[in-house]
Amino acid sequence: MSPKITTELLKQLRQAMKSPKYVQEPVQAYIVPSGDAHQSEYIAPCDCRRAFISGFDGSAGTAIVTEQHAAMWTDGRYFLQAAHQMDNNWTLMKMGLKDTPTQEDWLVSVLPEGSKVGVDPFIIPADQWKRMSKALKSAGHDLVPVKENLIDTIWVDCPQRPCKPLITLDLSYTGISWRDKIVALRSKMAERKVLWFVVTALDEVAWLFNLRGSDVEYNPVFFAYAVIGMNTIRLFIDGDRVMDPAVREHLQLDSNLEPEFRIQVVPYRSILAELQAVGTSLSPKEKVWLSDKASYALTEAIPKAYRYLTPYTPICIAKAVKNAAETDGMRRAHIKDAVALCELFNWLEKEVVPKGTVTEIIAADKAEEFRSQQKDFVELSFATISSTGPNGAIIHYKPVPETNRTLSVNEIYLLDSGAQYKDGTTDVTRTMHFGTPSAYEKECFTYVLKGHIAVSAAIFPNGTKGHLLDSFARSALWDCGLDYLHGTGHGVGSFLNVHEGPCGISYKTFADEPLEAGMVLSDEPGYYEDGSFGIRIENVVLVIPAETKYNFKNRGSLTFEPLTLVPIQTKMIDVNLLTQKECHWVNDYHQKCREVIGAELERQGRREALQWLLRETEPLKVQ
Amino acid sequence: MSPKITTELLKQLRQAMKSPKYVQEPVQAYIVPSGDAHQSEYIAPCDCRRAFISGFDGSAGTAIVTEQHAAMWTDGRYFLQAAHQMDNNWTLMKMGLKDTPTQEDWLVSVLPEGSKVGVDPFIIPADQWKRMSKALKSAGHDLVPVKENLIDTIWVDCPQRPCKPLITLDLSYTGISWRDKIVALRSKMAERKVLWFVVTALDEVAWLFNLRGSDVEYNPVFFAYAVIGMNTIRLFIDGDRVMDPAVREHLQLDSNLEPEFRIQVVPYRSILAELQAVGTSLSPKEKVWLSDKASYALTEAIPKAYRYLTPYTPICIAKAVKNAAETDGMRRAHIKDAVALCELFNWLEKEVVPKGTVTEIIAADKAEEFRSQQKDFVELSFATISSTGPNGAIIHYKPVPETNRTLSVNEIYLLDSGAQYKDGTTDVTRTMHFGTPSAYEKECFTYVLKGHIAVSAAIFPNGTKGHLLDSFARSALWDCGLDYLHGTGHGVGSFLNVHEGPCGISYKTFADEPLEAGMVLSDEPGYYEDGSFGIRIENVVLVIPAETKYNFKNRGSLTFEPLTLVPIQTKMIDVNLLTQKECHWVNDYHQKCREVIGAELERQGRREALQWLLRETEPLKVQ
Repeated sequence: MSPKITTELLKQLRQAMKSPKYVQEPVQAYIVPSGDAHQSEYIAPCDCRRAFISGFDGSAGTAIVTEQHAAMWTDGRYFLQAAHQMDNNWTLMKMGLKDTPTQEDWLVSVLPEGSKVGVDPFIIPADQWKRMSKALKSAGHDLVPVKENLIDTIWVDCPQRPCKPLITLDLSYTGISWRDKIVALRSKMAERKVLWFVVTALDEVAWLFNLRGSDVEYNPVFFAYAVIGMNTIRLFIDGDRVMDPAVREHLQLDSNLEPEFRIQVVPYRSILAELQAVGTSLSPKEKVWLSDKASYALTEAIPKAYRYLTPYTPICIAKAVKNAAETDGMRRAHIKDAVALCELFNWLEKEVVPKGTVTEIIAADKAEEFRSQQKDFVELSFATISSTGPNGAIIHYKPVPETNRTLSVNEIYLLDSGAQYKDGTTDVTRTMHFGTPSAYEKECFTYVLKGHIAVSAAIFPNGTKGHLLDSFARSALWDCGLDYLHGTGHGVGSFLNVHEGPCGISYKTFADEPLEAGMVLSDEPGYYEDGSFGIRIENVVLVIPAETKYNFKNRGSLTFEPLTLVPIQTKMIDVNLLTQKECHWVNDYHQKCREVIGAELERQGRREALQWLLRETEPLKVQ
Repeated sequence: MSPKITTELLKQLRQAMKSPKYVQEPVQAYIVPSGDAHQSEYIAPCDCRRAFISGFDGSAGTAIVTEQHAAMWTDGRYFLQAAHQMDNNWTLMKMGLKDTPTQEDWLVSVLPEGSKVGVDPFIIPADQWKRMSKALKSAGHDLVPVKENLIDTIWVDCPQRPCKPLITLDLSYTGISWRDKIVALRSKMAERKVLWFVVTALDEVAWLFNLRGSDVEYNPVFFAYAVIGMNTIRLFIDGDRVMDPAVREHLQLDSNLEPEFRIQVVPYRSILAELQAVGTSLSPKEKVWLSDKASYALTEAIPKAYRYLTPYTPICIAKAVKNAAETDGMRRAHIKDAVALCELFNWLEKEVVPKGTVTEIIAADKAEEFRSQQKDFVELSFATISSTGPNGAIIHYKPVPETNRTLSVNEIYLLDSGAQYKDGTTDVTRTMHFGTPSAYEKECFTYVLKGHIAVSAAIFPNGTKGHLLDSFARSALWDCGLDYLHGTGHGVGSFLNVHEGPCGISYKTFADEPLEAGMVLSDEPGYYEDGSFGIRIENVVLVIPAETKYNFKNRGSLTFEPLTLVPIQTKMIDVNLLTQKECHWVNDYHQKCREVIGAELERQGRREALQWLLRETEPLKVQ
């Protein structure tokens, strides 16, 4: 990996920062955040502006360029990668370290008095704008919106914004028609007395209209906004993709619907003008609902007195609670996914042990190949983490030729992978040893397994927030002084983003919404030993009602049902460290893998993988 | 309990709300919060203004009086009590219920357009003012400070503000001189580049100067403020109490100290004028540090640009971490406290079982009597909760003649009590049965005990916040559908307030600071069955370093050492529900009670109580 040479680019950017063509007054600093105009986690190539200007292409980072300096803020996952990818023009700001200044403090320390700091108002979320603007103002500077994105002005071979065909999902997948979703949304709007709702997150637009796309890798979404009024529906989307007859029929564009369900299709770019028009048409007490993470540009289009901002939109919350059609789909997707993984692990055992010719990349490709053989497979749900030995300790590792390592009988292998099927999204991590694990490796694996079980088998009252379960996953590790530096679980979409809000399981206090039956999360504790190995055991789990002996205040209880049904390697378990209850959990889980996945392997005629499954699910001897 | 008749008082208050003597323009509503000018949890009689105007004297509640209405907001602990104590003039606003409006929403719904809402700016914390003011402004009303407290103007027999003598604490109790505390504070101030620090919380003033008082029941504090500059110390305090030679010597008021350690003693009431003078003297970039919970009046005295507000002050954080002298003192105090409780429980067994003449009040008084026999006893640390049978289910119960119940062999007895000793503060809850508990009572008790042990024995990394431990206390209850509706632990002062920040163990996400060795908390899970019984097991525990097998990232681990050493009634335990580890914990704990408290009972010649201790600490048979 050699760093990107950015001297010329930075020179051009600094010229643009002073050019009357783009700015009314010169800006002394320009902020280049990671995101796109929808605050997406995964972004399209045309939105990788921070990677373009700096060379650093990790998933998180913010670049700030001043006349003298260029600085990059990123977190511990990416210190090494950023240092490798950036040239000497850049200063790496290691977030989370004590002496690293915040962006605001750094700007205040380097800027001449009364400076202007520019940013693309479409890229910066309103809440971030607010914080940054306040800090700069109190130091005598100004944060200013720069309408034209200055990176785009110097990015000669910038890729086109994708505009791929849409996929329509019928009721058998979604369980609810888009029409009924609009009705439910409008009733939430009426409850809060808002007249308009602006849908800015791509997965929320996709969910609302029961459409999917492929504009962004791994996330089956498409570039669009929507504005829902009490009597109008406007969908902001480009290209001729709505000319597709299937889409037209799905959206009933040519039917004579009641006016309040007629969808007006408008160009993607016209969202700002339309919102500004909405903003000027409002009477006192009429409100417009937006996510507080919507872009500054869209938020500003609505005068402050008319804004109703919430951290989670009603779509985000409704989307998180999967209905019967969706949970059935998720179950089917996970069965197919387990079949693919049984095939893969069986294949790996045959290849790795005697031949030693399988690299991390080959294993990842093979996993994709097996998945793609399954019905309704669409694409992967994220870049496969296929890592062996020390690479396993890099939590967000993705094998590339420079780091690609060969699987062997001497190292732990960690595979974190998943796929998008038309009926659901998967995300599963298994940690295997193809030789004989050391006692220490087994000990660590067993602590991680205990944590995984503690969450998966937890019973908790209705209304409990996910962050209250996080310590259950760590307790066994903590007892002997170990821990892992990531959260324990994230929400998972239904043929949608593999990471979604508003629920999660983390020690970080974020405003997570209470868990409800129907929500789908990951349960993925781990343990990582820098330079030697990584362990993670991840299932996707469904929140379900729990039967309990008593029922305090009639609140009802919840627990989890694992959707992922892939054997957990018993060779890695030190049975002496498990309680009876934990042994039973493992045996029950493996029994279910045998029944459900065994039947499907049988049905698909995959005899060898079935034999592997049966071998791997031999019950533990309960002490 | 008959309600207080408030018709005449409300009439007078409403006149005051319009009187040009007190308000420039009439106010259409007047808010009467619970607190005093220091945002204390426990308040002096002269500050019980909300109780005076309404009759409701629970510890939490806010009254709002308009021309037409009088409304009282309080939480679930006090619904019954408030309903009993208030007459028909008052509407009870049950906080936490879905349909209860917030104070802001209610005000907006009842006020005529463009109203003024008055409040005493000394009583309302700045953060509450900000929220309330914003909500009112956005509905076209104004929150206005009313300098003279309107309740005081109609309260003819208002008690005097207490002004009791001070207690000086020498180094053997405090471990650090006030001078060294000032040095440490100034270094924190220098770090944050602030020139002034305003001490507003009473326990922070007391801690900083190594002084105690008795102006407020249960809390050994005195009415005072302090303003610390880099070269000046001003103590705002009334009365001739600083004329006491012991106090003068302690504060070195008559010594020829270096100027930066000379304490200027100024009248309590002059704080506002002094702060205003500080406020006008500041140059750009000079800051004044205040708690964000300081009163609106004091906060406003400093122009916004010069304020540095934090949720926890450096004094609050330093005070929470007990030094060796303080932990030694806490240990001594808890030994004495345990002696008193062994005497009490031995006495109860002798009195309750054969005679049945002991009431909740008699038991509480007896507990105080035994405590007062111990060395350096000062007073109780809170109102004793002595409750039997159904009264035990009322979490903040305090026996009064109307509710006073006789202890019997048929009911569970719950005693939550504590004391202030010159060397430390105690707070302990034990739940006992003097006859034969039912299987269900034992089952519930055992779940609570499992929760208590899960927290007490938890090992967790340095830097962990207390709220991450809360679920450990609930897990056993959750497993069978039970729970309790309060937090699990609070910080405990060192001969100071029994409830103190900045740490705690709660499911409520508050901005708790990470746990550190030396912090002292309570561990008090419970279970309450309305109308039949209450169970709580509470120890005060000290955060100590833990030895672990491994040491991830060299972070080090922490655990708890119980300071409370009072037997947990084994009769109430269903041993079959405990794990081996839990049995060992109980046996080890009881062994320590025998050794430490046994020796002290012996030393004090309390033979009968010693016999009781030995009987009660017989080891459980480990399964």
